[in-house]
Amino acid sequence: MATIKVHGSPYSTATMRVTATLYEKQIEFEFFNINMRNGEHKKEPFISLNPFGQVPAFEDGDLKLFESRAITQYINHEYADKGTKLTSSDSKKLAIMGVWSEVESHHFDQVASKLVWELGIKTLFGIPLDPKIVEENEAKLDSILDVYEKRLSESKYFGGDSFTLVDLHHLPPLHYLMKSQSKKLFESRPHVSAWVADITARPAWSEVLAMIPN
Amino acid sequence: MATIKVHGSPYSTATMRVTATLYEKQIEFEFFNINMRNGEHKKEPFISLNPFGQVPAFEDGDLKLFESRAITQYINHEYADKGTKLTSSDSKKLAIMGVWSEVESHHFDQVASKLVWELGIKTLFGIPLDPKIVEENEAKLDSILDVYEKRLSESKYFGGDSFTLVDLHHLPPLHYLMKSQSKKLFESRPHVSAWVADITARPAWSEVLAMIPN
Repeated sequence: MATIKVHGSPYSTATMRVTATLYEKQIEFEFFNINMRNGEHKKEPFISLNPFGQVPAFEDGDLKLFESRAITQYINHEYADKGTKLTSSDSKKLAIMGVWSEVESHHFDQVASKLVWELGIKTLFGIPLDPKIVEENEAKLDSILDVYEKRLSESKYFGGDSFTLVDLHHLPPLHYLMKSQSKKLFESRPHVSAWVADITARPAWSEVLAMIPN
Repeated sequence: MATIKVHGSPYSTATMRVTATLYEKQIEFEFFNINMRNGEHKKEPFISLNPFGQVPAFEDGDLKLFESRAITQYINHEYADKGTKLTSSDSKKLAIMGVWSEVESHHFDQVASKLVWELGIKTLFGIPLDPKIVEENEAKLDSILDVYEKRLSESKYFGGDSFTLVDLHHLPPLHYLMKSQSKKLFESRPHVSAWVADITARPAWSEVLAMIPN
């Protein structure tokens, strides 16, 4: 097996999505820190790995990838036999996973990433937050979590009875949101709340969090 | 084979993504028109098929799906042997397809859908457009198409030598944008322009366009 390289930032939710997958699959990797405050992600050599200048970028031998969910899908497919099984081999179950995977990326993350920026990253760097953006996005998150509560009352995880890539993709924004005022939206819903407690307690997730400098 | 049902609108880009896939795979389906001007997509019975109230929804026997790209992936996987082969069986090629698939959905479509709304749908329904939104999104599209021009100068299609689901996912917004002022951004780039001409000439795509009422 060629050495896997991840170029990213331990603070970045997209980077954490990839490292969480690697820890779940028990795959060793080298981590190259991209200093985003110095704009390293917008310059060479990083820009040759991702023309959009966004972390993370990924290498497995001569294969170079970007876009976090494309990377997690690749790891999941290529290293299917290693570590945690994060997918289903049943076509219909896979289709249902696909639906919730798109919901995470097109509904949840669109809203969560704005809240992570306002309530997580801005606070971390001492930048004042925009209360209007917070209010608008918390209202949207509230509606999305109504759908989540219903889904998680019928199914322990988004993809069915076991933890999959769909649940994993939610972990990085949850890290920031559960430390912010938005946590009330999760805690007020029993099934969502139990699911958050369950997935954030995974040992692989602790390894991702241990990468964040104190 | 159970009858496939698509619930959507022939004007909706997400619906067109699904019908284009079905025509490419030569799979018969029943189409149920959801009148979005009457808000049918926000009410029962549609809302039971998609809790987010967005077209399309899809049924294959007792399997019910929503989110257009989850549906196209399912069709592609479940009916792999029918019609056009829209994917690769090589793991590394599949990973590269995955990258560009995410680029379509997280970069191109985020911008294109705003331009489709302003320049396509609003014009169709006689609603005045917002010039500031058009300007901002054309500037973003311009940068994305720089990346596209480079990719398409190295590879005939996004996924490699043959047409795949990644190219197909671009077709619906292209239908609106190539009839709008934004077409200049495509036409000024030789490889992007040749790719647009190639993929919009596909017979399956004509069948999708034939569903739009005159």
